[in-house]
Amino acid sequence: MHTDDILYGMRSGDAQSAEAIEAFVAGVVDGSVSRPQAAAWLAWAFQRGLSDGETVALTRAMTHTGHVMAWPDGPELVDKHSTGGVGDKVSLVLAPLWAELGLRVPMVSGRGLGHTGGTLDKLEAIPGYRTDLTDEELGRVLGTVGAFISGQTASLAPADKVLYALRNETCTVESIPLIVGSILSKKLAEGVSRLVLDVKTGSGAFMKTPEASRELAEALVRVARGAGVDCSAHITAMDRPLGEAVGNALEVREAAACLKGEGPADLAELVVTLAGHPRAAEILASGAAYSRFLAMVEAQGGDPRTVDGGVLDGERGVAEEVVVARRDGVVEQVDAGNVGRAAFVLGAGRRRADDAVDMGVGARVHVNPGDAVTKGQPLVTLIHRDGHALREALAYVGDGVVVGDGPSEALPLVVGSV
Amino acid sequence: MHTDDILYGMRSGDAQSAEAIEAFVAGVVDGSVSRPQAAAWLAWAFQRGLSDGETVALTRAMTHTGHVMAWPDGPELVDKHSTGGVGDKVSLVLAPLWAELGLRVPMVSGRGLGHTGGTLDKLEAIPGYRTDLTDEELGRVLGTVGAFISGQTASLAPADKVLYALRNETCTVESIPLIVGSILSKKLAEGVSRLVLDVKTGSGAFMKTPEASRELAEALVRVARGAGVDCSAHITAMDRPLGEAVGNALEVREAAACLKGEGPADLAELVVTLAGHPRAAEILASGAAYSRFLAMVEAQGGDPRTVDGGVLDGERGVAEEVVVARRDGVVEQVDAGNVGRAAFVLGAGRRRADDAVDMGVGARVHVNPGDAVTKGQPLVTLIHRDGHALREALAYVGDGVVVGDGPSEALPLVVGSV
Repeated sequence: MHTDDILYGMRSGDAQSAEAIEAFVAGVVDGSVSRPQAAAWLAWAFQRGLSDGETVALTRAMTHTGHVMAWPDGPELVDKHSTGGVGDKVSLVLAPLWAELGLRVPMVSGRGLGHTGGTLDKLEAIPGYRTDLTDEELGRVLGTVGAFISGQTASLAPADKVLYALRNETCTVESIPLIVGSILSKKLAEGVSRLVLDVKTGSGAFMKTPEASRELAEALVRVARGAGVDCSAHITAMDRPLGEAVGNALEVREAAACLKGEGPADLAELVVTLAGHPRAAEILASGAAYSRFLAMVEAQGGDPRTVDGGVLDGERGVAEEVVVARRDGVVEQVDAGNVGRAAFVLGAGRRRADDAVDMGVGARVHVNPGDAVTKGQPLVTLIHRDGHALREALAYVGDGVVVGDGPSEALPLVVGSV
Repeated sequence: MHTDDILYGMRSGDAQSAEAIEAFVAGVVDGSVSRPQAAAWLAWAFQRGLSDGETVALTRAMTHTGHVMAWPDGPELVDKHSTGGVGDKVSLVLAPLWAELGLRVPMVSGRGLGHTGGTLDKLEAIPGYRTDLTDEELGRVLGTVGAFISGQTASLAPADKVLYALRNETCTVESIPLIVGSILSKKLAEGVSRLVLDVKTGSGAFMKTPEASRELAEALVRVARGAGVDCSAHITAMDRPLGEAVGNALEVREAAACLKGEGPADLAELVVTLAGHPRAAEILASGAAYSRFLAMVEAQGGDPRTVDGGVLDGERGVAEEVVVARRDGVVEQVDAGNVGRAAFVLGAGRRRADDAVDMGVGARVHVNPGDAVTKGQPLVTLIHRDGHALREALAYVGDGVVVGDGPSEALPLVVGSV
C-alpha cells in the first residue's frame, strides 16, 4: 500500500482497514513512511481518535512488526503493567510472588521520565543487576527463576520506539488509542496469555481523575481482549504515594520488606489485588517470595547480598531532613505529585532520557491521609545528597503534605475494576 | 514561544494568535520546529482549516522570515500568478506587455511538476536563458527592461520551501489556507503593490470545478488584501488547453507569436483580461511588446536570435504524428488534462523535481470545443522524439478529444472574477 494512500485515508476521517494500519506500522519500521509522514498520521489519529477495531489493528501490527517472544510449554505466562505512579514498586514484589505461585512472568519494563520512577531504574540500584538481557538470557532466567524484569530488547515492538518518540516530539501523547497501542504492543510481544493492568488515578498519575482513568482502563481491556489476551484492569489511588518509600534504592528496600511480609499495608494490599490469586496474600505474608526475588536478582547479574543486609548503589553519603507537623491535626493530603516532584528534584528522576539518576535520594512518607498527628511529629523524611535541591524539595513537600482539621478526601486504594 | 505550546494550540482547534503563527514559521526556518513537528502542525491546519486572519498571519510570517525585495521609486510594481494549466504561457506574454505599458514586473516563477508545465521550464528552452538571477541581477534587469522572469532566490520565502515540500510529503496539499499562504508569501516577497490572479478551473487545473476555483480565488483575494496588496482574481477555463501549443519550446513560439499580435485568440484575450489596462489590447495587437520580450531574454542571458528565427533547445530531431477526426461532427471536448498528460508522457514534464525535461516535445491542438470538423481533418499534432511514449500519448488524445454530434459544454474563457 502506498504511503500517500495511507495518509489520504487517515486525513479523510473514514474508518481505516487493518491492512492500511498494518501498512503504516510496517512503513514506520522499514522507513518507507518518513518521520514527517508518521507525524501527520499521529496528528490525525490524535484529532479523530481510533475505533477499538482500529486500535486492535494498530496494537497487533506494532507487536508483529517486531519479535514476539515465545516460551516453551509450561505454566501460564502473566504480566502486569502500571501506568506509573509515585512510589510504585509493585513490579518488584509481584513478579517474584507470581513466580512463587507457579506462574511465569516475562516482565519487560521501562525507565522513568519526569516525576514517576521507572522499574528498571529502581532495580539498577542493585549493584550488578542487568536490565539489558538478551532474548537467550531472558529465556534462561524465566526457565530457572520463573520471572525476569528487564528492558525492551531492540527487536521488541520497534514501531513503538519510533512512534513513542514522535508522540513526545509532536505533542500527541495524550491520546487514548495511541497510549493503548503503545502499552499493549509491548506486552503482547512478551507472549503472555494474561495481563493485569494497574491504571493509576490522581495528582501523581498520568490520568488525574477516576473518570479519565476508567476510560483508559476500559479501552485497554477492550483492545487487549480484542487482541486475544485475557485482561483485567484496576483503577488505583495515586492521589498519595504508594507505600512509604519514594526513590530508587529506597523502593528496593521497601519491596524487599514487602516480600518478607513486612511492607506497608497499602503496598501489600495492592500487590495481592493485582496478583488475583487465592493464595497471594498468604504467600506474601509468609515471606516465601523473598528468596525468589533474590534468585531473580542473582540470575540477572545482581548481587543478592546487597539487598539482603548489604549496601545498594547510592545509599552511602546521603543525609536526612525530617519535615514535621507544625500543629496538631489530621493529615488531609499527601499529594503524590508533590512528593514525586520532591524526590525528582533531589535527583531520583531524570528530566531527559540520558540524564543520570541518583539511586540513593528520595523520600520516606510517614503518614497517610486521614492520620491524626501531633505538633512536631515527623511527616516526611527527605533523603538528599549534600543538600542538592533540598530547598525546592522542601517547598514541594510543604505544599503537598497538608495538616488541618480534616477530614481527608483521599481515594480508596482500589477505586474500581474493569 | 515554545514549540510545544505552538502545537498544543494548533491541536486544540482554537483560534491561533498571529504571534503563535509567526513563532511557528520562524521555527520552521531556524530549525527549532522539527520537520515532524511542522508535519503535525500542517496536518492539524489541513484538518481544521485556518481563518482569514490566521492565513494573513501565516502569509505575512512566511514572507517576512525571508528577504522582501524592495525596488527604488518608480513605476508601479505588478505581478500575475496562475494556479497552473495546460498550455498556459501567459506569463511570457504578460510580463513584457506590462513593461511596455510602463509598469514594472518582478516575476518570480516556478517549475512544472506533473502534467502542467512551469514558466521557468518554458523559458529554459531559450539557449542561455538564466532563471537563477541574483538579487542584484534581478534589480538590473527590472531597471533596464522593466520585467524579469526568474526563479525563487534562496532567501525568498524560505519557510515556503520547507512547508511546500512537507505538504507534498504528508498529503496536506489541497488545503485552501495553506495554498493561499504558499502562493501569496512568495508574491508579497517580490515587493509588488498589485497582484492579478488567474485561478484555473477544469480537468487540466488543480481545482476541477468553478465552485472550488471561486472558493480559492476569493480566499486569495481576501488574504492578499488583508496583507495590504491590491489584488483581483479571474477564474478562467482550463477544461481545454490555453492556446494551441503545449510543451516548452512550442509554447515559447506561441508566446512570441502572441507578442507579435499573431497568437491564438483565446491566449490574446486572456492576456488582455489579466493585464487590466485600457491600452493592453492595442499594444498586444501592435506587436510592440515583442521587442521588450527579446530584450528581457537578452538581459537574462538568453540568445534572442534563437527566438527570432533561430532554433530553440529540443526543436531539432523531433517528429510529428497527426491525429485526425474519424468522422464528421462537432468537437465536443478537448480535455486539457488528457492533452497535458499526452505532452507529459512524451517528455515535456517531470515526474520528480530532478527529472530532465525534453524541451522539444508536446502537442499542437488545432481545434476548439464547438468547432465543426470533417472526417480526416487534423485535430492534434503530437511532437515526439523517436516515438518515445507515443502510443500512450495517442491513447490520452484519443480519449480526450471527442468528436460527436455536439453541442460542446465548454466553459467560457473567463468564468468569473473576484
